[in-house]
Parts: sequence; structure tokens; C-alpha cells
Amino acid sequence: MLIPGELLRKKRDGGELSDTEIRWFVEQSLLGTISEAQIAAFLMAACIRGLSRQETAALTLAMRDSGVRFHWRQLGLPCVDKHSTGGVGDKLSLLLVPIVAACGALVPMISGRALGHTGGTVDKWESIQGLRTALPESELGHLLRSVGGFVIGQSEDVAPADRLFYRLRDVTGTVESIGLITASILSKKLVEDLDGLVMDIKVGSGGFLPTRELADELAEMLRAVANHVGLPLRIVFSRMDTPLGYAVGNWWEVAEAEQALRDYGSAPPDVRELTERLAAEMLLVVDHAASLEDALFQVRSIWQSGAAWERFHALVRAQGGQWEESVKAYARILPTPVLAQREGYVTAIEARTVGLSALLLGAGRRTQYDTVDPAAGILLRKKPGDDVLPDEPLAELYSSNPSAIPEAQELLQQAYEFGDAPPAPTPLILEVR
Amino acid sequence: MLIPGELLRKKRDGGELSDTEIRWFVEQSLLGTISEAQIAAFLMAACIRGLSRQETAALTLAMRDSGVRFHWRQLGLPCVDKHSTGGVGDKLSLLLVPIVAACGALVPMISGRALGHTGGTVDKWESIQGLRTALPESELGHLLRSVGGFVIGQSEDVAPADRLFYRLRDVTGTVESIGLITASILSKKLVEDLDGLVMDIKVGSGGFLPTRELADELAEMLRAVANHVGLPLRIVFSRMDTPLGYAVGNWWEVAEAEQALRDYGSAPPDVRELTERLAAEMLLVVDHAASLEDALFQVRSIWQSGAAWERFHALVRAQGGQWEESVKAYARILPTPVLAQREGYVTAIEARTVGLSALLLGAGRRTQYDTVDPAAGILLRKKPGDDVLPDEPLAELYSSNPSAIPEAQELLQQAYEFGDAPPAPTPLILEVR
Repeated sequence: MLIPGELLRKKRDGGELSDTEIRWFVEQSLLGTISEAQIAAFLMAACIRGLSRQETAALTLAMRDSGVRFHWRQLGLPCVDKHSTGGVGDKLSLLLVPIVAACGALVPMISGRALGHTGGTVDKWESIQGLRTALPESELGHLLRSVGGFVIGQSEDVAPADRLFYRLRDVTGTVESIGLITASILSKKLVEDLDGLVMDIKVGSGGFLPTRELADELAEMLRAVANHVGLPLRIVFSRMDTPLGYAVGNWWEVAEAEQALRDYGSAPPDVRELTERLAAEMLLVVDHAASLEDALFQVRSIWQSGAAWERFHALVRAQGGQWEESVKAYARILPTPVLAQREGYVTAIEARTVGLSALLLGAGRRTQYDTVDPAAGILLRKKPGDDVLPDEPLAELYSSNPSAIPEAQELLQQAYEFGDAPPAPTPLILEVR
Repeated sequence: MLIPGELLRKKRDGGELSDTEIRWFVEQSLLGTISEAQIAAFLMAACIRGLSRQETAALTLAMRDSGVRFHWRQLGLPCVDKHSTGGVGDKLSLLLVPIVAACGALVPMISGRALGHTGGTVDKWESIQGLRTALPESELGHLLRSVGGFVIGQSEDVAPADRLFYRLRDVTGTVESIGLITASILSKKLVEDLDGLVMDIKVGSGGFLPTRELADELAEMLRAVANHVGLPLRIVFSRMDTPLGYAVGNWWEVAEAEQALRDYGSAPPDVRELTERLAAEMLLVVDHAASLEDALFQVRSIWQSGAAWERFHALVRAQGGQWEESVKAYARILPTPVLAQREGYVTAIEARTVGLSALLLGAGRRTQYDTVDPAAGILLRKKPGDDVLPDEPLAELYSSNPSAIPEAQELLQQAYEFGDAPPAPTPLILEVR
């Protein structure tokens, strides 16, 4: 017979829990026979002592099996998804789903919400009026067959053990654990019944992993568990020091994604570069392309042809979104400019600070119980390398709450760094494995 | 503003919490604004990372201040208590309270209950029919003035934060922490408003601290915190490999204590030796004796004169106990002997196994929610050094539950070790600091 206290003692003292012990712990946690206090003690012990690859794999599978499992590979098309560790201005999912779906793969994306200084794809997608991200299971297969993809939130039925554990991690200071992060990501992705997954691991102050060492540690753990469960995985390391693109905040990011899909040439260079590479890797990981060149060619063709843009709107309509109404509604929100106070070149924009400024405007959540303002956000007018003159606008702020503007303005000023020369260019994509 | 998650993160990463942070955490825990999950995460982090002396002192004081505080030193007599880390057959409190009270000090003992293989003084004391261990605060001062002491259980009002934390420690595998143990012991003792405290730290397999190293670690932490809060402290290290005396189990230990007080010469030698020393240290720590010799002389005089035995009965009556009725009632419980299976000398009696055998008989609690059988217990007939012949009784078992006897019998057989020669004598008292 397994005893929770004995199991916790074992982990506390640095021992390795067996697959059976971990599965039992997860099952009993969901049943409530193991209390939240006991789960929290486990999370803290796992955080301090670490989880082995074997333990992480067992936790991943136990969490995957705690709720529904989909069977979308039965549809006969390659099934692929992308997951990012989270950043500022990262609207790439909103481009990737239509691009990759238009290339002929299925993209059943179950995504997350904003937390802290980073945004969440579900909140962005929901800023489109009428758009539903909580859909009954029965509609999901229909969406995949008709438009090749969807972007929805995590329902009560998807990996409920992960949701329980995550809620406790959030309040017990146990978010930062490579093992727990890996199990949380992969358990939900495994529910999607994928042929392959692309991970976008963000490195830099704007993400959750400030150093390359931590990013490598996470990548190795993801790789080990993916191998263990037989999930093909490609890992892209990308910089997250500067916000991606110009828009930060829910509706503004959706609008930027739509514009980029409509007009390839108008896409912000960083958004275009990373989107193309991630889309290509998504095709590659499910053998839907013969080579990187072939994959990039497919992606660019679909994008430049307008097919991806059409698919974007097909996805919006399929999930109930009303595009024109949204454009009109948000056009009424007036910007407040942030002006440059000196002449020179923008040398850096601290992504984390931009994210916190957007959070102040209402674009994010301090805790998971907050609601977001879909109209809150920031449009950057200057990015690193751009020259500025005094009183030239650096950015525009949007919010439904005018009283939030001054502090957000102040913070955004602090996010900008200036110099007398443009900064040396830095690569956006650090490595692909 | 303090944020629970930040505080937990700090402790998780091995940082030291400030006095303010610890007091706030304890206060909010009791208010419920910090959840049990957050407390459990703290306890696990404290267990793995350890608590510094400063942190332990802050935790002790915050727990002390979480409920009522008594002011018994106002009564004008030295106020002293003893605390033991727990053992098997340790009925010494039942001798110490009357002896030390009869010597002229006050002994306001708030004691604990049986848990696992170790007994609890409150359960023992309650085996006397009619005796109440939950007394209103208003009666306690009267008891001290009239009989110089009492033995009661921890009420809801005494260090409630300790009770909350202890309940969570018990289920989260976080009992074994020097810092948490120290804070739990001293917070309750500080509520008693003592002039001095004697700690009996048990070393050996029958206690909670199997090695001398752990015992030393606890002693150093107790000393540091006692110094910090200005509590005079004497620490006695005593062996707990063999049960103390012959009786193990609630009523049987009370009866043995009463008999020992009535007739000094009949007291089991180990019970007498340790009781005398602990009583003497209690007098010394509150300056109620000029020297150890003087203290021992006072203790022996009071004991041999019968004054301590009279005080025992005064205490029993004052708390509502009916002695004669109890003696008669328990006389009806029939013993089951455990017979020797070979000839030789008893070389050891594993205290932990005896404690577990008594637990099976009903004398203890597997969890804090179990109830105890006051009539359950073991009377040892042979102790280390005694010679035995085949079929001679080693011990007698008592229980209100006859079905528990066979397994307890089996276990008790296993507790005994035999040899062809008596074992070398080992000191009972290892050190006094």
C-alpha cells in the first residue's frame, strides 16, 4: 500500500519515485484523497530536489491520462502543433495555425492564457468579437476537417491534473522547475494526439528562462520525455529580449498577425523570420516536407499567395468570430503616445518591461483570477536600430482604463535604451535541434 | 507588501527569511489568507533547506504569540517544566510533576498525546477514571496555587499556529526538521511562562532521533533559540534503546509511577535514576537548589518521605481523578503471557518494537485521529541482564481487544534478544549540558 507521507519523505530526501508511485499520486490527487497540502509539499520537494527524466516522463503520462484523450490522427492527415515558453508580442501562433493548415497539416492547438508579463494566445484570439475558445469536443473534429485547425483554451476535461497542479504551483512558488514545466507542457500536447511537436524555447529576459543554460536544461528534459513517449520533437531556440513585432496586447497582436498574413511584405521582419522557420519545422517534424528548403518554400508560397490569410479568416469564422465588427470596435480606442526624450538610436527595448507596461494597461493578468482588457496594449513605433528625434513617438498606448496610462507610460519609457549608434545586429534564431 | 509566493521562492532557493516575513506568514496562515497548500510548501522547503537559528527563533515566537499566554510567574514561585522528545515506557513526567511540586516549584505541564510507537503523557494521565486534562484557563491558576502543578493537554488556545502546522507536517512528510521540531516544542513551552526548562533528549532507536548527531543538532538549536528568548535551559541526553521501567501502555505506566512514588525502593532502577536527575535539573535550572548534590538530596528526601506520593494523589484528585475506582476497574483486565523460547540472558529489548506491539494492543495511535485503549499495554517481566528459562514469562500483554493479542505477542517476541552471557552495562544518562 502506498502512503502519501512516505512518498513525500522519499522525494524530500532526494530519492527517485517509481512510475507506479507517481501515477498513484496524480490519480489520488485528482480524487481528493491526497490533499492540496500534500500536493504542494510534493511540488516544493520536486522543485528543490529536481525530477529525473524517468520521473518527469511518468508525471507527464499520468497527467495526460487524467482527462480526455483525442484521436485526431485517425483523420488521416499529419497532426502537428507548436508550443512556446512564452514571450512578449509573441502572436506567432495566430500566423502558424492558418499557414500550416493551409499547407495541408492539421493544427489542433490547445493554448494558454496570459500570466504575468507574457501574453496568452487564447486571450489574443478571444479579443475577436464573438469568437469562442471553449468548444465542445464534438465540434473540434468538425473544425479540423473543415478548416484544418483551431485555437482553443484548455477545457476542464483536458489534463485536469495539470490544471490542479498548475494552480498550486502558481501560489506556492514552485513554477520554476524544469521537470514540472516539462510535464505540464507535454501532458497537454500529448492529449492532442500529435504526430509531431515544435517547441519554441525563448531565451532572454522577456521569457521565463533568462539564461541559455536553463533553456538547454529544459530542452534536454523535453527531448528525453518526448523520446520516451515516442513524440517527434523539433526545438527552436529564439531570443526574447525585444518584443516580437510592433504590437503587444491582445487585439493589437491579432490585428498585426492578420495584416502580416494579408501582406507578406508588411510583416515585421522578426515576426516573418521566426514564423517561417517555425512553420517549416512544423512541416518537417511530421514529414510533410522533404527538406528545410522545401518546407520554407511551401510556407512562403502559401503565405504570399494569400491562402494563409484566407485560412485565418476561415478559422475566425469557424470559431464564431466577427472580424469586421471587431475592427470597427477597436478603431474607437484612442492612442496615447509615448514620446522620445532625446535624439539617438534605439539600442534595446527590454521585453519584460514592455510586458509589464501592457499588464498595467490591462492586457494581462497579475493572477490567474484577473480578467484581461482585450483593447489594452502597446504599438511600438520604434524598434532597436531605429533613429529617433526628441518628441518623436516611440510607441502608442491603448487601454479601456485611462487611469492606468501614466504609470504604463513611465514604465515604457524605462523599457527603451538609446545610444549614439545603432546596435550590432543579433540573431533572432539561436539554434534549431 | 509581502507576497506568499515570493516568500516561498526565497526559502525554496535557500534564502533566509526575516523575522517580519516569518511572523507575517504565521499570522496569515492562522487567518487563512495563506492557504494550507502554501503552508505545506513552506514546511517542505524548511525541511529540505533547513531553518537558521534566527528563522527558528522567529518561528518559535510567532507561534507562541498565536494564542493565549499565561502569566504564572506572577504567583511568586519558580516555574519549571520538562519536555522529552518521546520514548517507550517514559512515564517520568508523572513522577516529576509531584516530586518537583513537592520540592516547592510550580510545574504547569502542558503535554502531548501518543503518536506512532511512542506514548503521550496526556493519554497516560487520562487513563485514571474521571481525570480531566482539558481544563478552563480559570482553573489552572487555582491548581498551581493549591497543588503546585498539573498535567493537561494542549487546548485550542495554546499556540494554535503550531497545531495547524503540526497537522500539516504529519501528512506532508515534514516532521523530521530540526528547526520545525524546535519551534514546535519551545513555542508551547514559552506559552507556559517558565523560569526554566529541562529537555530530555532521547537518543536511540526507541526515540525519534536515532543518532547522537541528530540529537546534538536538535540540542544546539534548542539552546540557540532558548538563549535568544532568554529561557534558561538544561539538556539531558538519555538512551532510549530499551523501554523505561517495566510498564508500557497508559494505565500500566500510571500504576508503575504511583507504585514507584509510594515505595522508593520498588522503583525500577532506570526510572529512578533518570527521574532523580531530571527532577534535580528542574530545581537547578530555576535556581531552587545550590548544587546538583543539593538538588538530588532534596529530590530523594521528598520522594523517600512519601510527600511526592501524597502530592501525586493530590494532583489526581485536583484534576478529578478517581484512583481507587481505577485500580479496581483495571484489575479486571487479564494478562496474556509471552513466554521465553530458550534459555539464556536477555541482552536487549528493542524499545521501538515494544512500542509498536503496545500500539497493536491499542495503547497508541497510528494517526492523530485514532483513539487509545487506556487498558492496553505491556508489563515486561524480564529486562536486559535478566536470565530466563524456557517457558518463563518474558512479559504480559493487556488489551480490551483480544483479537489484537496474537500479532502483538509475535512482535514482542521479536523485540527480545538473547545471549549466553549478560550484556555489558550501558549508561542511561549520556550527558547533561
